[in-house]
Amino acid sequence: MAKEITSRAENYSQWYNDLVIKAGLADNSAVRGCMVIKPYGYAIWEKIQGVLDKMFKDTGHSNAYFPLLIPKSFFSKEASHVEGFAKECAVVTHYRLKNDPNGKGIVVDEDAKLEEELIIRPTSETIIWNTYKGWIQSYRDLPLLINQWANVVRWEMRTRLFLRTSEFLWQEGHTAHATQEEALEETYKMVNVYADFAENYMAVPVIKGVKTSNERFAGAIDTLCIEALMQDGKALQSGTSHFLGQNFSKAFDVKFTNKEGKLDYVWASSWGVSTRLMGALIMAHSDDNGLVLPPKLAPIQVVIVPIYNKPEQLAVISEKVLPLKKQLEEKGISVQFDVRDNFKPGYKFAEHELKGIPIRMAIGPRDVENNTLEIARRDTLEKKTIAFNETVDYVVTLLDEIQNNIFQKALKFREESTYKTDSYEEFKELLEKGGFILAHWDGTSETETLIKDETKATIRCIPFDNPLEEGKCIRTGNPSSQRVLFARAY
Amino acid sequence: MAKEITSRAENYSQWYNDLVIKAGLADNSAVRGCMVIKPYGYAIWEKIQGVLDKMFKDTGHSNAYFPLLIPKSFFSKEASHVEGFAKECAVVTHYRLKNDPNGKGIVVDEDAKLEEELIIRPTSETIIWNTYKGWIQSYRDLPLLINQWANVVRWEMRTRLFLRTSEFLWQEGHTAHATQEEALEETYKMVNVYADFAENYMAVPVIKGVKTSNERFAGAIDTLCIEALMQDGKALQSGTSHFLGQNFSKAFDVKFTNKEGKLDYVWASSWGVSTRLMGALIMAHSDDNGLVLPPKLAPIQVVIVPIYNKPEQLAVISEKVLPLKKQLEEKGISVQFDVRDNFKPGYKFAEHELKGIPIRMAIGPRDVENNTLEIARRDTLEKKTIAFNETVDYVVTLLDEIQNNIFQKALKFREESTYKTDSYEEFKELLEKGGFILAHWDGTSETETLIKDETKATIRCIPFDNPLEEGKCIRTGNPSSQRVLFARAY
Repeated sequence: MAKEITSRAENYSQWYNDLVIKAGLADNSAVRGCMVIKPYGYAIWEKIQGVLDKMFKDTGHSNAYFPLLIPKSFFSKEASHVEGFAKECAVVTHYRLKNDPNGKGIVVDEDAKLEEELIIRPTSETIIWNTYKGWIQSYRDLPLLINQWANVVRWEMRTRLFLRTSEFLWQEGHTAHATQEEALEETYKMVNVYADFAENYMAVPVIKGVKTSNERFAGAIDTLCIEALMQDGKALQSGTSHFLGQNFSKAFDVKFTNKEGKLDYVWASSWGVSTRLMGALIMAHSDDNGLVLPPKLAPIQVVIVPIYNKPEQLAVISEKVLPLKKQLEEKGISVQFDVRDNFKPGYKFAEHELKGIPIRMAIGPRDVENNTLEIARRDTLEKKTIAFNETVDYVVTLLDEIQNNIFQKALKFREESTYKTDSYEEFKELLEKGGFILAHWDGTSETETLIKDETKATIRCIPFDNPLEEGKCIRTGNPSSQRVLFARAY
Repeated sequence: MAKEITSRAENYSQWYNDLVIKAGLADNSAVRGCMVIKPYGYAIWEKIQGVLDKMFKDTGHSNAYFPLLIPKSFFSKEASHVEGFAKECAVVTHYRLKNDPNGKGIVVDEDAKLEEELIIRPTSETIIWNTYKGWIQSYRDLPLLINQWANVVRWEMRTRLFLRTSEFLWQEGHTAHATQEEALEETYKMVNVYADFAENYMAVPVIKGVKTSNERFAGAIDTLCIEALMQDGKALQSGTSHFLGQNFSKAFDVKFTNKEGKLDYVWASSWGVSTRLMGALIMAHSDDNGLVLPPKLAPIQVVIVPIYNKPEQLAVISEKVLPLKKQLEEKGISVQFDVRDNFKPGYKFAEHELKGIPIRMAIGPRDVENNTLEIARRDTLEKKTIAFNETVDYVVTLLDEIQNNIFQKALKFREESTYKTDSYEEFKELLEKGGFILAHWDGTSETETLIKDETKATIRCIPFDNPLEEGKCIRTGNPSSQRVLFARAY
């Protein structure tokens, strides 16, 4: 191995951290809770962005950009929003520094105190709805379907690379509609877009559902979500879509004239995914050798390693490989020909495994003679020697197969890790094993909080296609009409 | 006209502002000095980003992301950098708000004061070089060719949409090299990339040159730039590329082992362009009817307006137009078929002119009969009726012609607005007319400052291909070896 990583069995949390650091995805920074996203990690994020951005545009959305800084008073306008978001945040109080009169570096200039403090956006509903007020007069201005790619800051005491950082990157959609129906339709449409992306690009199976009031977005009427299961049996909320009703239009006085000529408040949705998806992607598929990336999001899909002793041999191999590389690229496949001469093939193999490159090819002088090459797939680590002329077709098919295989593997794992129980004792035992648990709940926030305090499990969601079923709450024994999805979560 | 805009002759500054607001590019926000970039403006920015990002990648760069917040002490580490950047900036002093004990909204929690204040990045050299320290040990780790797309904040008292805002979007490249030669080569390479982009995509001719020490980036050994001339005769600095020498590697102690096994400080460059380019794009080409966008950066390149009275007519027109739209799109051309039924053609025409869409087509029932359509080009406002079957080829050629024409027009304007003078009186008169002035200067900062104080003109740059020429400084009469480029600037 190029760089030793801790095994999952030994210490799952350390395994994750080792992967992120050693595969060159991200680094801790000098600023508490803020990460540096390194080029390889950022390249994956760019892939994620590219696919999602197209999905958003294909569903009629446009991008825009709103200010980073939000006046403090805006947060007080929506009653429950302030409770959820105005607390742990970065507060700008001054707009100037000056030389220390005692000659010790620079200090804050107290003469440059802001009249009203500005908050670095933890989310942008307030500034956006304050802006929409100027944009919306009539039903003709609706719907407004806008997305923003941005950085946000939520002060966090305990941080983990990608999963929980004080600053993170995300997209936030903010839509305005003439009717409740349309806003609801949008809210559901976007959670479906997220699920489509998670399953068909990230190869991560997700459960779509509705959050309970305890877990709802501060300011929403309803929060829809997608929930994924990680290899350690913990859930990861991977995207949320909120039906905001008229809460923000009322808070910011955004009215419109409807087709009947009457004034009404605008209906709203908001929805977002963040660099947290990187955490899900890493944890869902990777193994003790390193990352396993789904081909559709891998910055490099194929790496070709020449095996040679003498420069003349490399020349012969290159002559064979370069046209192949071009052919693959013409099929839209990203290929790296790893000709670095200061690393041995074994070191390169380990590095490419660590980085999760889906397909590795090796080709030496004998392969050139035999018109063959060796193909290794990252997901199963299987190797195979194939005829050189069949490579392009083989790779095209294999990329699809890998994409499908890692999804099926994750789905199988989730299915095997999803339990039903009617006993609180068993519930607690199952939580120690990890996984999703479908159990009855009496529908009250109090019971949900009690279960959380006692077991650290939360209700991840009430799944969309949840069958109704008479039962008794696992904790209180009170009547329940359906099982809900519990898990310990990131 | 759909929306009245002030003419350039009447009030150039108001014309600019009207354009930005009424064409839907940007809006002022509730936060002093921060703008909202509206969907149409952001779509142009996305085009700019797309082209530049490809250019950066084609020249070997990767994207990454560094923290928004920088510890205050970092700014003191590079002596001249602190003077330039640590002053007018947004300072984060607290990380929590709380409910006002008197029940009046929310207030800053004084218990949550940061030990060290954090500054919202005005530029990222300090945090990035502090990070590079951990990434660079040996010459094998070099060069490091990294770019970041990000938002930055520089507190501004007088702001103008796109041209000068407290928060703006930009890209900042930060490269690390083993030798001075390589770092210098990179610095020049990137100013050339910017010039290529400005001229061949924005259709804005630029002069490449070196800044004087007065105008140099705080912390640079040399600043290279591209300077464009706006229609009011004022210059706009449109991109800069800095040779940083070893200033930041010394400030942050970033050493590497070179090929000879000796420790040396790393050599650096940094370079950036921002949403200010939007200002240049708008001001360089637009007219009293609205925006004029170069086809290569226009989000919509062709708009098709159906002319009809009855729904049956629209059906007939659509049957004709939709296959044409598809054919154009297959050529990579973005097309909008404007079927909005609540606006009249005249209103639509004015709106498309305001938005600077390069080609407008109109087609009515008689056109369908005659197998023709009317094409209007935005740059010259000329109209022409052409045979329907020739449309695709005609449009492909016309887009190129428009792109070229607006560049030539801007180039001609600049050439006619570039003067030489040896008289300070004439220099001052020319400045009132506006334009670039090539004049002798004695090479001292004092004289440059004097001229600036007396005339508001600054030295935009010493052009790269500047011919040497004996002369006398226009202000002091001291000997000079070359003319430099003066102008009043944005």
